[in-house]
Amino acid sequence: MDEVHTEVLAEPALEDPVLIEGLPGVGHVGKLAAEHLLEEFDTTLVARLYSRHFPPQVTVEDGRSQLVGVEFHAVETGDADLLVLTGDHQAQSNEGHYLITDAVLDVAEEFGVDRAYALGGVPTGELVDEYGVIAAASDDALIETLDPHVEFREDEPAGGIVGVSGLLLGLGERRDLPVACLMGETSGYLVDPKSARAVLEVLQDIVGFDVGYDSLEERAEEMEEVAKKIREMEQAQQAPSDEDLRYIG
Amino acid sequence: MDEVHTEVLAEPALEDPVLIEGLPGVGHVGKLAAEHLLEEFDTTLVARLYSRHFPPQVTVEDGRSQLVGVEFHAVETGDADLLVLTGDHQAQSNEGHYLITDAVLDVAEEFGVDRAYALGGVPTGELVDEYGVIAAASDDALIETLDPHVEFREDEPAGGIVGVSGLLLGLGERRDLPVACLMGETSGYLVDPKSARAVLEVLQDIVGFDVGYDSLEERAEEMEEVAKKIREMEQAQQAPSDEDLRYIG
Amino acid sequence: MDEVHTEVLAEPALEDPVLIEGLPGVGHVGKLAAEHLLEEFDTTLVARLYSRHFPPQVTVEDGRSQLVGVEFHAVETGDADLLVLTGDHQAQSNEGHYLITDAVLDVAEEFGVDRAYALGGVPTGELVDEYGVIAAASDDALIETLDPHVEFREDEPAGGIVGVSGLLLGLGERRDLPVACLMGETSGYLVDPKSARAVLEVLQDIVGFDVGYDSLEERAEEMEEVAKKIREMEQAQQAPSDEDLRYIG
Amino acid sequence: MDEVHTEVLAEPALEDPVLIEGLPGVGHVGKLAAEHLLEEFDTTLVARLYSRHFPPQVTVEDGRSQLVGVEFHAVETGDADLLVLTGDHQAQSNEGHYLITDAVLDVAEEFGVDRAYALGGVPTGELVDEYGVIAAASDDALIETLDPHVEFREDEPAGGIVGVSGLLLGLGERRDLPVACLMGETSGYLVDPKSARAVLEVLQDIVGFDVGYDSLEERAEEMEEVAKKIREMEQAQQAPSDEDLRYIG
Repeated sequence: MDEVHTEVLAEPALEDPVLIEGLPGVGHVGKLAAEHLLEEFDTTLVARLYSRHFPPQVTVEDGRSQLVGVEFHAVETGDADLLVLTGDHQAQSNEGHYLITDAVLDVAEEFGVDRAYALGGVPTGELVDEYGVIAAASDDALIETLDPHVEFREDEPAGGIVGVSGLLLGLGERRDLPVACLMGETSGYLVDPKSARAVLEVLQDIVGFDVGYDSLEERAEEMEEVAKKIREMEQAQQAPSDEDLRYIG
Repeated sequence: MDEVHTEVLAEPALEDPVLIEGLPGVGHVGKLAAEHLLEEFDTTLVARLYSRHFPPQVTVEDGRSQLVGVEFHAVETGDADLLVLTGDHQAQSNEGHYLITDAVLDVAEEFGVDRAYALGGVPTGELVDEYGVIAAASDDALIETLDPHVEFREDEPAGGIVGVSGLLLGLGERRDLPVACLMGETSGYLVDPKSARAVLEVLQDIVGFDVGYDSLEERAEEMEEVAKKIREMEQAQQAPSDEDLRYIG
Repeated sequence: MDEVHTEVLAEPALEDPVLIEGLPGVGHVGKLAAEHLLEEFDTTLVARLYSRHFPPQVTVEDGRSQLVGVEFHAVETGDADLLVLTGDHQAQSNEGHYLITDAVLDVAEEFGVDRAYALGGVPTGELVDEYGVIAAASDDALIETLDPHVEFREDEPAGGIVGVSGLLLGLGERRDLPVACLMGETSGYLVDPKSARAVLEVLQDIVGFDVGYDSLEERAEEMEEVAKKIREMEQAQQAPSDEDLRYIG
Repeated sequence: MDEVHTEVLAEPALEDPVLIEGLPGVGHVGKLAAEHLLEEFDTTLVARLYSRHFPPQVTVEDGRSQLVGVEFHAVETGDADLLVLTGDHQAQSNEGHYLITDAVLDVAEEFGVDRAYALGGVPTGELVDEYGVIAAASDDALIETLDPHVEFREDEPAGGIVGVSGLLLGLGERRDLPVACLMGETSGYLVDPKSARAVLEVLQDIVGFDVGYDSLEERAEEMEEVAKKIREMEQAQQAPSDEDLRYIG
């Protein structure tokens, strides 16, 4: 087995497809967003990518094993054609991130991709009320195109962007592929479907397609329950001191 | 030295041999089971596999050194022919697991293997009374064949299957070799010959051979003594509170 | 992407350029010194070096991504020509340090470099009043040349020199390139512009160029404020015992 | 730079030289023994071996840098010719141990080595009075030859032999080079020149040469002082209970 092995399973004719990457990361924002697209549209599994830089592992579902890797799905939205990359794992080593991103860009080239969006979350460290989406891009022309739809902040994300999302920008630029990263604000403590929705709303405006959010909204409501309980617990922890004062009074 | 180096020592004529893998893992179930086959039948050491992904180490017995690696033994059961893989070590790195499993599959191909069983344990976290055997397989036809003999559980093993056992399924499927993993339930705390026997009883039904269990039963009784002492210690830890109550009474 | 990838961006005609390396390290002395040269003189970005041994990361400034790597700048001081290497990261692995240093030496050769200076800090473990500069060199002739300007101490730096600075000496010698490392004494606890100035003052005497220190002095004064506060806090911690005695008296 | 790079510096005519390896390890027994040979006999530095699997580091002595690596010295004892391998570092990775040992064996082959001895210590966990030397060898004929001089214990060393010493046996056997490892008993807590002497006394009988031990004896006496103090401290810690009893009496 090569360091990275690509298995092409189908070759649908896609028109100027846009690569959308949503692998696990902060708040699972990118992964939730990418998987939502796969749920809402008709899709074709077009390629799988395996690597010895992924964990040495198979997943098992109803007794059937599946080697860990990442998958490319062709998505026809009716408007734009998408090539959606998702999966359950990132590489387990620095070098693996580089090698896998390079292989992802090879597949993208083969399918004629001429623009890519890496989706992810940016941690705020506290529960988020208004879900801003900040962005970074690999060339200035793309920054101008995105400017009406997203925020470009001077000093964010502070630590840069790591993993496959970061390297799509860095290595994409080396190949003259314009790549942007859309990052939804998220606490960083919870799986965050609301942040995923915020990212998708920006993405659909930029790329040009329509998607419903019912299923994502359901997951958001479930998580909102969890977030609510956390807020209550936080308030409960602050309350005693107030009550203490009243007792004193 | 290559990343993985295969040393073929004998080439006995085997008829449709079945690969049986039993390397160290949870409860040493797979290793115990594989080694039991080597004890009970006439065997020929056919190949050794060395790798720089194994520990940089020799074992020493009566002054004679032996480079660490894994070994293939040809086993003639009278019924089916087996190719049994065992050893004292797994790879020390993610990449090593992939490279070594690939080399194992190369050897299997050379000997005409057309089916493989990875043996192992699945941890239950508590002492086991009835030793269930759960399974996973790399293709649907094999699942049907195994179905009368084992359990396929919807959500087990929860974390998938890791190491060489997992990759035999994952990489075997890539080569169109049907592979199943048989996992004996075991506490995860003790070396578990009873679980190894449960796995072997399933294996002999599926593959079609007869094996005695006397020597494995002896080891099981030794371990049962250990398990018994643990149970007594657990009860002893609960007892004091009862006695305390009596004192109060 | 290769293990190390060099991107040449400009090929200015440099006369016997001297390679100056200032990557992150103890007290950021080398990095501060190298960056000060880039601020004070006219410079041309001549090459970037990327590697899968750097972190899998892009930095982001005003929304524009930049793959992490190190950069070579041509610097015309009016006297000597310099090739200044700086960046925000060292390699993330032992092997990476070797591969990246080899690639740095390749670029140096291409630009006709015939001498190199690695700049860095040597930790003293306490706040420094007089900033000595100690040195090490890859050949005896260079030691003689440097002897009037720096200290060569019998047993320092005690742990040798690690990372790219160390390997520039070790691998440079293998290519018959004379390399010296200039190490400014520094506490090891703070970013240390004063130590960087001490190193640069030695460097300008040896290489032969003139540079002002105003901007570095400003940063030094800021850090001096920090150091002063630390000294005050240290004295405050020792004071109580004296006062206690007075109370007793 | 290759994974391992060999620099041949001299090619003296050696007659059937014996390879002696003494790299850092338990009690520094092997390194002390090898370095003692270099002190006592006339030697020629014949080769240096560098590798990206060593630390990325130069040592510095009186300002002169030296890339870390290991060295081969030709030693003419008057009787047997030796090729002594020593250095300050072992490889930093599993793979490195394999690659460096392979390169060591390449150099050995080039110099016509037809037997090798890896020197080291075996930890006993307590201060040693009588320094036994146990052995392991890569072939049965060599075990017979060594049998009158050393002990071959059934179950020692318990954990096998790791690092370059272990792999010299394991990889040497693959090349039909007979290799033995001589391990002096040592506490494992102290640098142990006495254990090194015990190993050398066995080695000189087996290989056939004469060496004095004055300088090693001096170091042994220094360490004996340290060991004595430790024994006194141990007794002091046990004493109080005796005294307590007297007080009670």
